[in-house]
Formats: sequence, structure tokens, C-alpha cells
Amino acid sequence: MARYTIGMDFGTLSGRAILVDVKTGEEKGASVYEYPHAVMENALPGGKKLPVDYALQDPQDYLDALTHIVPDLLAQTGVSPDDVIGVGIDFTACTVLPVDAQGTPLCFSDEYKDDPLAWVQLWKHHGAQDYANRLTRIAEEQGETFLGRYGGKASSESLFPRLWKIAVEDPKLYDAMDEYVEAGDWLVRILTGSDTRNSCAAGYKALWSKQDGYPSKAFFKALDPKLENVIADKLKAPVQSIGTRAGAIDGKGARLTGLNVGTAVSTAIVDAHSGVPGTLQEVAENQMLFIMGTSGCQMLLSKSEKVVPGVFGMVEDGMMPGFIGYEAGQSCLGDHYDWFVKNCVPEEYAIAAKQRGMNLHQYLTEKAARLAPGETGLLALDWWNGNRSILIDNDLTGLILGMRLTTKPEDIYRTLIEATAFGTRVIIDNFEAAGVQVDKIFATGGICQKNPMLMQIFSDITGRPIGIGGSEYGPALGAAVFGALAAGSERGGYDSVFDATKVMANLTDTVYTPIPKNVAVYDKLFSEFMKLHDYFGRGGNDVMKRLKKIQEDAIASKA
Amino acid sequence: MARYTIGMDFGTLSGRAILVDVKTGEEKGASVYEYPHAVMENALPGGKKLPVDYALQDPQDYLDALTHIVPDLLAQTGVSPDDVIGVGIDFTACTVLPVDAQGTPLCFSDEYKDDPLAWVQLWKHHGAQDYANRLTRIAEEQGETFLGRYGGKASSESLFPRLWKIAVEDPKLYDAMDEYVEAGDWLVRILTGSDTRNSCAAGYKALWSKQDGYPSKAFFKALDPKLENVIADKLKAPVQSIGTRAGAIDGKGARLTGLNVGTAVSTAIVDAHSGVPGTLQEVAENQMLFIMGTSGCQMLLSKSEKVVPGVFGMVEDGMMPGFIGYEAGQSCLGDHYDWFVKNCVPEEYAIAAKQRGMNLHQYLTEKAARLAPGETGLLALDWWNGNRSILIDNDLTGLILGMRLTTKPEDIYRTLIEATAFGTRVIIDNFEAAGVQVDKIFATGGICQKNPMLMQIFSDITGRPIGIGGSEYGPALGAAVFGALAAGSERGGYDSVFDATKVMANLTDTVYTPIPKNVAVYDKLFSEFMKLHDYFGRGGNDVMKRLKKIQEDAIASKA
Repeated sequence: MARYTIGMDFGTLSGRAILVDVKTGEEKGASVYEYPHAVMENALPGGKKLPVDYALQDPQDYLDALTHIVPDLLAQTGVSPDDVIGVGIDFTACTVLPVDAQGTPLCFSDEYKDDPLAWVQLWKHHGAQDYANRLTRIAEEQGETFLGRYGGKASSESLFPRLWKIAVEDPKLYDAMDEYVEAGDWLVRILTGSDTRNSCAAGYKALWSKQDGYPSKAFFKALDPKLENVIADKLKAPVQSIGTRAGAIDGKGARLTGLNVGTAVSTAIVDAHSGVPGTLQEVAENQMLFIMGTSGCQMLLSKSEKVVPGVFGMVEDGMMPGFIGYEAGQSCLGDHYDWFVKNCVPEEYAIAAKQRGMNLHQYLTEKAARLAPGETGLLALDWWNGNRSILIDNDLTGLILGMRLTTKPEDIYRTLIEATAFGTRVIIDNFEAAGVQVDKIFATGGICQKNPMLMQIFSDITGRPIGIGGSEYGPALGAAVFGALAAGSERGGYDSVFDATKVMANLTDTVYTPIPKNVAVYDKLFSEFMKLHDYFGRGGNDVMKRLKKIQEDAIASKA
Repeated sequence: MARYTIGMDFGTLSGRAILVDVKTGEEKGASVYEYPHAVMENALPGGKKLPVDYALQDPQDYLDALTHIVPDLLAQTGVSPDDVIGVGIDFTACTVLPVDAQGTPLCFSDEYKDDPLAWVQLWKHHGAQDYANRLTRIAEEQGETFLGRYGGKASSESLFPRLWKIAVEDPKLYDAMDEYVEAGDWLVRILTGSDTRNSCAAGYKALWSKQDGYPSKAFFKALDPKLENVIADKLKAPVQSIGTRAGAIDGKGARLTGLNVGTAVSTAIVDAHSGVPGTLQEVAENQMLFIMGTSGCQMLLSKSEKVVPGVFGMVEDGMMPGFIGYEAGQSCLGDHYDWFVKNCVPEEYAIAAKQRGMNLHQYLTEKAARLAPGETGLLALDWWNGNRSILIDNDLTGLILGMRLTTKPEDIYRTLIEATAFGTRVIIDNFEAAGVQVDKIFATGGICQKNPMLMQIFSDITGRPIGIGGSEYGPALGAAVFGALAAGSERGGYDSVFDATKVMANLTDTVYTPIPKNVAVYDKLFSEFMKLHDYFGRGGNDVMKRLKKIQEDAIASKA
């Protein structure tokens, strides 16, 4: 008799769920729910205006997604809740909200509904940048070493700068909250009543490590006396490893979803990280998963624990139990190609593409695929959205050079793709230079399934074979794997993640292999890329930063 | 009674003529004839294929233009040939052809009609680059100083490398030609029977100077023993100053044009240089004329004779009798903006522009004009077609940096305009650093009349007022001025160029004046521009040249 798990993936703009056959890995159906409030960047639902750099969400959207996608999936597939043995949830992070003792978001209350800081701060909320900078400085002054696990810098996309800001600027809210929780953990609590904090988000986004736990009380006191007991006060739920059972669906969870009471629910995981169990079938050290979305993430499973400069996070058990998980990233990937297609492709191409029944990506790819490596004469730095790894510098900006009057749109399109692949190679080379080995690369995300030319370029430029994940919902599939682990073999699931991924992870037979003559050309171009990378990125010429300052002044002078 | 002159301007793709009232400067009419063969880059009319870098023309096109535009102009305006007192001709240069003793082009003969080198080599023909390089080297070895007048380098866009190539590779043609003549001088000979060589083309394109004449026999012998007597053999016509009378229309000239026998014809002049008498009303030293076409030329009248590095040519009497004329240039200007509009503007903009009844330049300009200096956050190097001044390096290519995901097409458009203005400022600063003063700037060409935003940017970036020429046909108007000088006051024309330009040159009242707060921002951006200019243009990082080499190899490896 077939047994199923449900993997739920809560992204930036929608919640998605898939139902997976635990013994075959087959995806039986999928359901998507777009958040009505999407990302609130200008105003709260009640009309209150937001400062710049804010990116908030409404937790009600998550609940509405939950109550839509799970029943829809059951109805669509005709699968009985009796045959659903487990559920897993992945979620964007750091995506955090303050809740009361019952787990109710404070933004649901009349008292706080007009308080921006009471709402969910989405991963890309940058309202606490000042606090992040101060945290870095104080950690350095105090001789703390934990930032070594995060490339040496605290990010505004992490928990403590945000919580510190609330403590200072909104003390009443700080005092009123019972906990400051990741949205993924909050949804697990909604379904099960169990209050947990997943090791993935705690590790990558809240300075926690398996060996040392959170930073010391002394450190938090150095930030602000009010924060001395912040862990006991506001992060009291136990950190629980990903891939373990957080609890089981309770009465409330059953009412919301239509699942049976007692159905196993796994600990939450961060969405990108969940792509690892969704894609890697033979889990082993030195494997890298490249998640190709609007931005790019490089997830590396390792047994060696090194300080790798410019890496975004290094967490034991962070993406797979038993491994050190390193996370590096590129701040734009699909967004980069989309920027070009939206802003820089002439009408003539748009018309020709329509006549051919293609979208512009397909049309440009067809033309760009006819070019040999080096034939464009162009080179670009892929910093259109700053540089996440390995420079960790949001003030860097894009560059392209080599243009002539004969340069065509497809030349530039190919060059931007090559630039992102060079950016990936910088990350891989940086791991290896720090003594962390990268053997095999796998990729997941729509881009890698749709664009063979692009993947060949990534293989040629990194000089490594790249295996391609097969699921359209890689992170959701990873969550489904963890749902099967939460259920355990007794209930028809798995006890070992290695056994589970062998069956359930979705890896196709497609492997892109480097073509030696392309590699030779790209090696030359990469050395040119690195010269520009270091010149503009490491202080040789800070023109990009100065331009940004001149721009800010120009805008201010118009106001 | 009104008296008229006709100015004829032979450009790259067409011949144009205007008829001008000598006493009022009024342009009474214009006629344009497009060359049927345009530029022959792939094959001769008989089908013979051409090597790369060739750009040839058919001299019959010039004759056909001549016999069309002058009669058309007379018919259009109803002006009697009796009232046309003089004719002037400007022509692209170095645009040269071999002729026999009667002045007939050798390409008209059956024997040479399939010989590419027997046709007109257009200014942008680069088939003799190797000979240009060797000429530079030998001049240096021989301690010759004349290249100091040309920025230190012989150009493939000049006469002797081309003639040398013919002597070596096509000796029969070399022996068969009676002269190797500029097309402008050839047309003067067609009209008058007088065989002259104008001081402008001889100076800028054939190493001649008023003080020293051509290089020595010893130098030409060092190039090639066969060239020892090249001046006496192939350039025997006397060099005659621009602004003087070359002769008068003879019977043949009258048959071709419908003008009266005896009508004065001035010495030819190079087209860009002819813009100077067509625009500058109060001719004085330290005035610069900026000719804004597909490429840009900076023409500077001076009394000081200095070696200015990176200047394209310095010729006494080269553009105005009594002045040293310095010519500097930018390899692309209008072409640069056109490249962007053709290749990089999205369909959405094209549709919106059409709805507004605007072309894309107008639409982008409207949007770009709303931006303050510095607001784009971008910076570009304007080397899409190499760099003519002050680096004299065709292997340099374009660069743009500062792009983010929020960068819009109008940001880039404005930045490319700013880049060309920075390129102009580099040229001006370079003159002044060499001790050659630049006081006033004037501009001519369609761009400066059509785009106030662009001209304000040029004024803000150069920090100087810019007066705007009013004629749509600036060079043709300069030729008409010289036609009036050829006629002389006796026949109703002028004896002094200063008197003639006061009346006939067309300068509007429009002057763009630098806006101090813009100047302050652009000064900052210019110092950033210069850092990049010197880093990429003076050997700090020769990535552009290496990319070009990689590109050539890539194309070769596909073949």
C-alpha cells in the first residue's frame, strides 16, 4: 500500500505543497497559493507608511496558504489522509515575527497592528542594517570568533540585529513578545503545538552552533544590557536538528489542513537548504548543490570545519544531519538575466521571438548558443545586486566591458550568463583555497532544467560535471523527505536520511560535462574576470562605492 | 542684385549642395544625391570579392552626384547661373584614387576594373594598416619628427601607407598611375581642368606641412627604394592653400553642372574642416568647433604650434588661412547613441514612443532629461569604436559600470551621452596641458541642433559655453564661403575670409552655458572617468586588447 508525505515550501511570494510517494519518489500533485499581501514595502494593511529598506509580510497569508494548499492537494490527488504519514515544511529565513505566549502574532492584536516591527520581517528586510554593523564591530572588539562562521560580518538578514532594534526603538513591543520566532518554526507550532527552533535557521540566521550554542550572555550584555538574557527571554524554544520529528498534527492542525491528528511533522528547514535533501540522492561530503533561482545559493556538504572567508554561513547539521553545511551565494542570478530581458532587448527581437512562439530568453539563448566561448569579446562582473560571496559587499555594482558598435544583444546576454558562472567559480575556488574540497556539483531550480546552453557554460567555466535535479519543487521535495524521516520506518517512512534521499530525491540522468576546448578559453577569461574582481572589489578602485554616494547626493539634492 | 555661391559637400554616402546668398548668408535651397554604390566593403561592382577592412567607392557616383545636385539646385531655386559667382567643394579624406595623365580614374578602364586598389579608397578603408605601422616604425628609426604633428602615429586613414602598399603589392598599377589624388581635388580638376592638391588634405592626410613640405626623398627611400621620387612621380600637382581660387569652370565643367564657363572654383577642403568657415562668424584663435556627427571632430584654431600628444593632425592653414588648425576626434558619437537605440531599448519603450509620435532618441531624451547629474549611478568609457584622441588606439573598447537591477534604459542612454562629453573634455584638457589654449567652443551638426539636454551636458562637463551652428549643412556652407573667396570682391564675393564668415557663416543665438551645480558633480565624475581612462587606456590593465585577441582566436577556431 502506497504511503505519502507532503512537503510544503513557503517562498517569498507564495506557499507551495507537493504530495510524494515515499516508496517511489513520485510527485503525485502540487498546489500553489500566492500571498494576497505579497511583500509589504510601502505600507501596512492599515495604511501606515513604512520606512525605506523595509520588507514585511502578513502571517495570516501563511495560514491562508496552509489551509488552501494541503486540502487542495488531497482533493486533487484523491489520496486519503490516512495514507499521508508525514509533513515537512521549509520556509524563507531569516523571516521572523514576535508572538505572545499562545504563539499568536502580536500584529494580529489591535494594540500592535499599526506597529511595523510587530509584523513579519522578511528575509530581505534591511531595516536593521545599523544594528548589524554595530554587532559586527562589538563582536570584533570583544574578541568573539563566531562571526568567522559567517564570513566575518553580521547580516541585516539575520535575527539579532532586528531583535536588538526592537529592544532599543520599540521597548514596549520587546517586553510584550513572549518569543521572537522564525515563521517556519511558527507554522510547525501551529500544526503541532510544539515550540521548536530548527537548527538550520538558528545556525545560519541566529548565530547558534551545535558546539557552542548561542553567543554568551556577556556578549549580548555588551550589545545592550537589556539583551543580557535575550536567549532565555525571547528564544526559549529548544533548538532541534533538521530531519527530526518536531511533533504530530494536533486537533487545530487537523482542522486547518484536513490531515489526521497524529500525522508526523518534521522540524522546519530554510527553503534553499531544503533543496539539498530534495536533490542529492547519494548524500556524501564535498558535494555542492547550486540552487538557481532569482539569486543563487551554493550549498556544500563537508566534513571539514574551516573558516572560509566570504562564505555566508557554516553550520553543523545545517542542511543535512551529520555534515557541516556551508552556504555561499550570489545576490542575483535569474534576476540578472531578467533585468537584461526587461530593459535591454530591442523591439525587433521581441517581434521575432513572438513570431517564433518563443519567449525572449529562449530567443536570445538560441542566438547566444551559436557563439563560441570568447567570441563576444565581452566580459562582465555579475554585481548587479551587490556581491554576497565572497566579497560580502552590497555597495558593489555591475560592470561590462568590450562593447563595440557591432555588439549585439545576444553577445551581452551570453556575457551576463558567463559572468554569473565566473561568480560561481570564484566561490568554488575560494572554498578549495580555504581547504574545503568541492568534488561534485548538482543544480536545482527552473533555470537549470530549461537552459542547456547556460548549464554547459557553468560546467565549462567551473570545470566540473554538473548533475541536474529533476523536481520543479526541489525545496518542497526536501521537506517531503524530512516528512518521511519524521514518520520513521515504523509508519512507512525512513529512519535514515541516506535511505530516504536514495528513493525520494529527484536527480535526473542529465549531467553537463566540461568541454576541454571551452574550458581552455574560459580559463583565460576567468583570469581576466579575477583581475577586474579584485581591482573593483578589493579596493583597487572604489569607483562603484563613490558613484553610489554621488547618486545618493544627486537624489537628495533634487528632493 | 543678389549674388550666390554653391557649396558642395561630398560625404560618405551622398553628395549634397546648397546655394547661398553671398550678401545675406541665406541658404536658398539644398539638393542631396545618394551614391548608388555607397561603400563597397564586400565586392566590386564586377563581382570581385574584397578582403576584410576594405572600404572602396566608385568615382562615377561622385560624377553622377555632381550632375544631379547642381542642376537640381538651380532648377529648385530659379537662380540663374549668371548670378552664381563661385563654387566650393568639400570632400571626405583621405579618400584617394589613382588617375591617368588625363585625370581619368584607372578603375574606369577594362584593364583595372577588377583591381580593388584601382578604385577609390574611402577615408575609413583600413587595408594598409601594416604599412601604416611600418611607416611609423621607420620614421622613428630615422629620427623623423613629422609624426609629432599627428600624435606620433601614421594612420591607415592616410595617403602614403596606401600608396606604398600599391607600390609593393600592385607594381603595375603603381607604374600605370599618373597621380594618386584626393577625390576632392579630382572633382575640382573635373570642373576646372586645374590639377591642385589642397593644403588641408595634404596636411592632415599626406604628411605635408607649409614649412617643410612633404617628408624627404631619403625618408621615402628608406621606406622603399621605389618610393624615393614618389612626390615628383605621383603627387606632382602643387599644394594650394584652402580658401584660394583653384580655377574656373571650363567647358566640360559647364556641361556637367549647367554653371557658366568662368565661374570661380575654390581649392577643395576636407569635409569636417569645412565646418569651421561654415560656423565660426568671428574667426579668432583659441576657438574650437565641435562637429557632431556619427563620429566627433574637435577643430581648433590656434596661433601656437605645439606637439600635442594624441592629436590627430596639426596643419598650418589647414582649416582657415592664417591659423594652425588642430584636429582631434572621437571615433563614435552619434553612432554610439544609435548603437544603443538599435540594440538595447526594450519593446515597451518602442511602443510608448510610437504612441507619443516620438522616435526613440526623443523618448529616451525626455526621460533622461529628468535625471540629475550623478543620479544614474553609472559611468562609461566611450570607446565603442576605439579611441581616436587622445589615445589613438583602435583596440580599445567600451565599458560601462554601476549597473543595478533598478537601472533603466534612460540611465544608460544618459550615461553614454555623458561618456562622449567626458571624452571631449579629455581632448580639451589635453590641449591645454600641452599649452594650446581653448577659449570658446562652437558646435555644428544635427545632434547639437536637435538635443538641448545633450548640449547642456556637454557644456556642464566641459565647463564652457557652447554656441550652436545653425546650418543643417555646415560643411557645405563652409565650401560656399570658400566659393565666395574664390570669386573675390570684384565679382561680388569676398577677398577676406573674415569678411566672408561674418556674413555667411551660420551661428545661432543659442549658447549653452555651464550650470555651476552640475559642473561640480560632473567634475567628480570626470575624475572617476580619468581613473578608468588611464587604467584601461594606458596599460594599467590591457584586458580590452586581450579580449579582442581571444575573440579573434574564437572566430578563427570556428572557421
